[in-house]
Amino acid sequence: MVKYVFGVDVGGTTVKLGLFDIDGRVLDKWEIPTRTENDGVNILPDIAVSIQEKMSEKAITKKEVAGVGVGAPGPVDGKGIIHKAVNLGWAEMNLKEVLSGLLADMKVEGGNDANVAALGEMWKGGGQGYSNLVAVTLGTGVGGGIIVDGKILTGYNGSGGEIGHIHVEDNETEPCGCGNHGCLEEYASATGITRLANRKLQSSDKDSVLRQGEVSAKTVFDAVKSGDELAIEIAQQFGEYLGKGLAVIAGVVNPEIFVIGGGVSKAGDVLFDYIRPAFEKTVFHGCKDTKFALATLGNDAGIYGAAKLVLG
Amino acid sequence: MVKYVFGVDVGGTTVKLGLFDIDGRVLDKWEIPTRTENDGVNILPDIAVSIQEKMSEKAITKKEVAGVGVGAPGPVDGKGIIHKAVNLGWAEMNLKEVLSGLLADMKVEGGNDANVAALGEMWKGGGQGYSNLVAVTLGTGVGGGIIVDGKILTGYNGSGGEIGHIHVEDNETEPCGCGNHGCLEEYASATGITRLANRKLQSSDKDSVLRQGEVSAKTVFDAVKSGDELAIEIAQQFGEYLGKGLAVIAGVVNPEIFVIGGGVSKAGDVLFDYIRPAFEKTVFHGCKDTKFALATLGNDAGIYGAAKLVLG
Repeated sequence: MVKYVFGVDVGGTTVKLGLFDIDGRVLDKWEIPTRTENDGVNILPDIAVSIQEKMSEKAITKKEVAGVGVGAPGPVDGKGIIHKAVNLGWAEMNLKEVLSGLLADMKVEGGNDANVAALGEMWKGGGQGYSNLVAVTLGTGVGGGIIVDGKILTGYNGSGGEIGHIHVEDNETEPCGCGNHGCLEEYASATGITRLANRKLQSSDKDSVLRQGEVSAKTVFDAVKSGDELAIEIAQQFGEYLGKGLAVIAGVVNPEIFVIGGGVSKAGDVLFDYIRPAFEKTVFHGCKDTKFALATLGNDAGIYGAAKLVLG
Repeated sequence: MVKYVFGVDVGGTTVKLGLFDIDGRVLDKWEIPTRTENDGVNILPDIAVSIQEKMSEKAITKKEVAGVGVGAPGPVDGKGIIHKAVNLGWAEMNLKEVLSGLLADMKVEGGNDANVAALGEMWKGGGQGYSNLVAVTLGTGVGGGIIVDGKILTGYNGSGGEIGHIHVEDNETEPCGCGNHGCLEEYASATGITRLANRKLQSSDKDSVLRQGEVSAKTVFDAVKSGDELAIEIAQQFGEYLGKGLAVIAGVVNPEIFVIGGGVSKAGDVLFDYIRPAFEKTVFHGCKDTKFALATLGNDAGIYGAAKLVLG
């Protein structure tokens, strides 16, 4: 009888693994290093060994396992092939087939890490109870995952939900990491907020607590909460860009809810005070009531979503 | 044995109907007036009568009919309920249930007209052979339909694919029909192009054939083809807005192809000369190879797509 499912989140330095029951309760979670040397050839074998060891340890048989879900940093197409996972050293890798082969043909499902994390937040996180949602991760970059009728929107070649690189500013002079200019990521990521803050500190004469010490997304929103005027101006800029970007996304895929996660989201509900007005200013009227919530699973969203990928 | 399917496209003045075989060959098509008086209470009964008459005329039995698909101008949710179809006088109408009831429980499926037309272009039009596509209709307004893995993306409340109202210009002073400022529709629809042209004619001293006679999307693109410099500048503006908008859509849903239809698309492939460079300038690199094609079904896209809605 099927009782268990594994969720695996492959990052550039660490692989996170989780053992869940099929109702989504986490029974165990652990990490192994990501061995990216030799084009990452050891990564999937290491995962297979770790899963087999866990099964031995817990006396779990293959029949009791629904399968293994894997989220990885790169575009994953409908066949489970990941393309150009530069952080892992992979040029192209059939996640499903290779890992399944290493695990005596156990069922394996694969997906892009941001998309899989979105599925996790839908299943057991900030988006629980919703089946049409967009998860937005405001971290070093801006990632996204789109869930339509309970399923990940992968897109034609796995680039669906790459919302960090939608264009929101025509007059940007500094390039984004992707090479374009004016991507959402340049204003709404942790590094983007820091950049907005540094620009504002240079262009304004206003006094601010941000003039002492190092500036970060955290210090900006801490200052916002203490009423710092300059910090509030920075938060408004951040909110304008993100709100405008999410308004476009709403008009395209019409989610019921946006679930905001990533390091920046630790600032809490105050974010919505700046995102929501800008969102409402430009969004299509049919999407004005779209809800906003904070992600709740943190770094575990990936293992939850990977497990859910198997359960369907 | 099932041999036939009906496709119905409900417009504000005319209802188009089509009888198809289940391979999508059109066997007959005709129109009836849309009686919008009395809150449009006669519209569905008129359709039911017209279909029954056609079945009698052709000696088609109910068993031979897969069902009736209906596209209508308003947001249609997953249950087949259309909300606020102002052009028809409907506040809320359960297309599926009501029409099915009027047709002795024949199978009925309903969808938003722009979404249904997108499905038609996928099935038998410019998007044939593709299952991830975005159809863009450049008419009086700008409509859109998003197809993901062969199915319409409806969204939470039927507002999915409302791409005419995604925000592309922060500095617009004139409002869009929807009440917002800077919607794609203000620059890429037939009326939008006319407005861009009139603005350009006023702000520029350049000579142009457009200074004679009435300006329209057609006269602008005719002038572009004859090398008129001012018209080319207008086409560039149009292309900047539309290319930028489609780039965002590509980054969100990652279609394999954009299928461009509506009155403006009669200008032909020349449109892509202006859309494509702007698209490539801002689109996420993973979506740079997205294809572009012209729609081919014209005003029949709706009846084709409605029929396909039934066949699944």
